[in-house]
Amino acid sequence: MSKHHVVIVGAGFGGLAAARGLRRDDVRVTIIDKQNHHLFQPLLYQVATAGLSPAEIAAPIRTIVKDHGNTSVLLDEVCGVDVATRRVRLASGATVEYDSLILATGARHSYFGNDAWEAHAPGIKTLDDAVRVRRSILIAMERAETLRQENIGERMDFLTFVVIGGGPTGVEMAGAISELTRHAAEMDFRHITPKCLRIVLIEAGPRLLATFPEALGEAAQQSLEQLGVEVRLNSRVEQISAGSVTVSGNMLRAATIVWAAGVQASRAAAWLGVTGDRAGRVAVDPDMSVPGCPGVYAVGDTASIARADGRPVPGIAPAAKQQGGYVASVVAARIAGAAPPPPFRYRDHGNLATIGRKRAVADFGRVRLSGFPAWLLWSTSHIYFLVGFRSRVTVGLHWLWSYLTFERGARLITGLADMPDSIAVPQQRAA
Amino acid sequence: MSKHHVVIVGAGFGGLAAARGLRRDDVRVTIIDKQNHHLFQPLLYQVATAGLSPAEIAAPIRTIVKDHGNTSVLLDEVCGVDVATRRVRLASGATVEYDSLILATGARHSYFGNDAWEAHAPGIKTLDDAVRVRRSILIAMERAETLRQENIGERMDFLTFVVIGGGPTGVEMAGAISELTRHAAEMDFRHITPKCLRIVLIEAGPRLLATFPEALGEAAQQSLEQLGVEVRLNSRVEQISAGSVTVSGNMLRAATIVWAAGVQASRAAAWLGVTGDRAGRVAVDPDMSVPGCPGVYAVGDTASIARADGRPVPGIAPAAKQQGGYVASVVAARIAGAAPPPPFRYRDHGNLATIGRKRAVADFGRVRLSGFPAWLLWSTSHIYFLVGFRSRVTVGLHWLWSYLTFERGARLITGLADMPDSIAVPQQRAA
Repeated sequence: MSKHHVVIVGAGFGGLAAARGLRRDDVRVTIIDKQNHHLFQPLLYQVATAGLSPAEIAAPIRTIVKDHGNTSVLLDEVCGVDVATRRVRLASGATVEYDSLILATGARHSYFGNDAWEAHAPGIKTLDDAVRVRRSILIAMERAETLRQENIGERMDFLTFVVIGGGPTGVEMAGAISELTRHAAEMDFRHITPKCLRIVLIEAGPRLLATFPEALGEAAQQSLEQLGVEVRLNSRVEQISAGSVTVSGNMLRAATIVWAAGVQASRAAAWLGVTGDRAGRVAVDPDMSVPGCPGVYAVGDTASIARADGRPVPGIAPAAKQQGGYVASVVAARIAGAAPPPPFRYRDHGNLATIGRKRAVADFGRVRLSGFPAWLLWSTSHIYFLVGFRSRVTVGLHWLWSYLTFERGARLITGLADMPDSIAVPQQRAA
Repeated sequence: MSKHHVVIVGAGFGGLAAARGLRRDDVRVTIIDKQNHHLFQPLLYQVATAGLSPAEIAAPIRTIVKDHGNTSVLLDEVCGVDVATRRVRLASGATVEYDSLILATGARHSYFGNDAWEAHAPGIKTLDDAVRVRRSILIAMERAETLRQENIGERMDFLTFVVIGGGPTGVEMAGAISELTRHAAEMDFRHITPKCLRIVLIEAGPRLLATFPEALGEAAQQSLEQLGVEVRLNSRVEQISAGSVTVSGNMLRAATIVWAAGVQASRAAAWLGVTGDRAGRVAVDPDMSVPGCPGVYAVGDTASIARADGRPVPGIAPAAKQQGGYVASVVAARIAGAAPPPPFRYRDHGNLATIGRKRAVADFGRVRLSGFPAWLLWSTSHIYFLVGFRSRVTVGLHWLWSYLTFERGARLITGLADMPDSIAVPQQRAA
C-alpha cells in the first residue's frame, strides 16, 4: 500500500507550518501553490511603498522545503475538490488524489460586492499587487512634477493619495506613503514640496485599529497626523471610479487610491460545497477539520474558528502558523492510530502595527507600547520572523541603511506598458 | 535672455555622463527618459538568471542627479525632433525647446528583419525583458518537474535552453543559465537531474567573442563546455517559432529561447531625418555632433564613430561614458566662447566577459586573463563601477553570499498572468 498522501494547498504561513510539522512523519506531502514563492505578507506594504524589493520578502517554496525529504511542490492552481473521491482538480487539467487535504489558501481583498472598484483602487495581497501600487504612486509624482500652474487642479489630483481602511494594513500604508512622498518631494523633485501633498486615510468605523485596545488606536491616529495624514473616521465609501472616491456624499479626487478595507477568503468553501461565513471562511471543528468532508482541514484565513472567550481567532500570520502546526499533529496522530491532540487553542503573542519609520503600536495584553520603543520591537521581531529566508541579513542591513540615510532603493517603475487604470496620463505642456 | 538649455534624451551611461559633465556650468539641463531609472545594463543578465533583483542594478534618475542644481528630469517618451525649430516632440503631446540636444538613446535588440521572432525569443535590454526571461526559465523547470515519463519529449523541451548569439551577452547568459538550472536541479527539484538539462549556445560566426582576441574566445568556449554548454559555431538561425528554432537546416525544440545576437540603435536617426548605418546608428563628426543638425550630438549606442586605426568605437558602457563627458566639454566650450576641445578619442581600458560564477576572460591589450583571476577582476570592477548606486554595498554582499552559499535570492516568478508565448503550458497528468 502506498503511503498516506497529505495534500497542502497554499504555501503561506499556515501551509508551510503544516508541511514542516509533517516533515519527519511517514507520509508523502504535496504542496500545491499557484505561485512559486512563499510571501512574507506582513511586509508587502513596504514593497508597495518602495522600501523593500520583491525578492527581499519572498523565497521560492522549493528552497524552503528542500530539506523535507517527503515533500513535493507543484506549481498549479486548484479549481475544485471532489470530496467523495478525495481528489483535487487543477487548472492544468490534472487531478491529485489525497488522503488528507489541508486548505491554507489565504484571502484576497474584498470590495463588498463592488468588484468594479478594484480597477480604480487596487488592494495589496500579492507581489504583483504591491508592484502595481508602487508604480502608481511613483508615476503620480512624476506627472505632478511636469504639470504647471495652469493645471493646478489636475496637479493636486496626482498629489492626493487615498487609503481606504483603518486596520493595520491601511495604517501602515498611509504612514509609509506619507514618508515616501514627503521624502521624495524634499530630495528628488524640483517642483513638489511636502506642503503640496495630501494623504487621506478613510475608515468607516469610529476609530483606527479596531482589533487593538482603544488607547493604541488613538496613539496610531496621533502618529499619523504628525506625519501629515488626514484621518477621516466614520466615513463610508459610497463610490469609486477612475481618479475619484465618494465618501459620505463628498467626492474626493485622487490619482492613487489604495484599498485596505476588507478581505475575503479564497474559494475553498465553494470547492467543498459548504457555506462560508460572511468573509467566505469555512467553519471548522475544534480539530480544524471541515464537518462533512472527511480528511479535509482548513487553516489560517481559510478557516473560521472561535477562541475560548468567543472572539474569533484573528487572521494574522502567527495564528495561521499555529493552526498549520496543529493540523500536522492531528494528521500524524490519526496515521499513528494515537489519541487525537486536544482541541486547537490560539496562543495570543500580541499584536503589532507600524506607522512610518520610527513609530509603531504594540499590544501584549497587559503591556502596551507605542512610539519608538514599539517600532524597535516591531522591526527586530519582523527581521527575526523572516525565518527560512536567506534575505534576513539583507533586510536587516537594508533597513538599517534606510533608517540611517533615508534612501529608498526600490523606487523603480517597472512594467510601464500596462499602466494602472487609476492613472490617467494628462496632456502635458512644457516650455 | 534665458539660459542655454541642454536637453539630454536617455539616462544611460552616456546621458548621465553628459549631465554630470555640465552640472557646474551655467546652463539648464533637462534629462528625458521613458523609464524613471538608470539601469546598470552590464548586469542585466544576472537579473534574467535570478542572481540579482531588479532594484540591485537600477537607481532612480532623480536620485542620481539630485545634487545637480541645474538639472530637471522628465519621465516621457521622445517621438520626434524638429531640427529646424530646435524642438523635441514627446509622446504626451508636449514639446521641449533646446539649444543643444544630446541623443543618448541606446539600442534595442535587432532581429535582422524577422521581428516576429521576438515573441518566441526575447532579448534582454530592459528590466522588464530580464524579468520576463527569468520567469520563462523558472516556469520551464516547474513544468518539467511535473511531467512524467510518458511525456519525455515534452519534458526535454522544457529542459532545453537555447541562447542565440556568441558575443559577451550570449556567453554570459549561457554560463549563467547553466549554473542556475544545474544548481536548481541539484537542490530544489526532485525529478530533474543536471543530466536532464541541455543548454545550447548558437553563434553564426566561426568563434565566440568576436571582439576579443582569438585565444580568449577559445578560453570562453572551453569554460562554457566545462559548464555543460553545447557551443555551436558557424550556425545560422533560419527560423524561430513558438518552442523551436531552426539552425542550419535542423530544428531544435526548446521552451526557452533567448536572443542575444544583435542590436539596433534607437530611432534617433529617423527623428533627425538622417540615414543611419547598418545598425541604425547616426554617423557623427569628430566632435560627436550630427552633420546637418546644428546643436545636435549623439553618444553611445546611438552614435557611429571610428577610432584612429579605423576600427569602430565599441558599443559598451565605458565608451558611452567617455562620449557623454566629451560632449559636455564641447557644449561648455561653445557656450563660454572658448576653443573647442580636440576631437573625441576613445581610451580603451580593456574588455571583460564573465562565464558562470568563477570564470571570466579579460583583454587589456598586452595583458590577457582568463579563468578565476579574470573573474575576480570582473566582479571587483563591476562592484566598483556601480558608482552612484546606493546598492553597491548590497550587490557586493549579495555576491559574496551567493558565492559562499550558492543560494539565489531572486528566483521569483512574478506576473504569472502574462506568461510568455514561448511557454506553452502542457496538460498534466498527475497521480
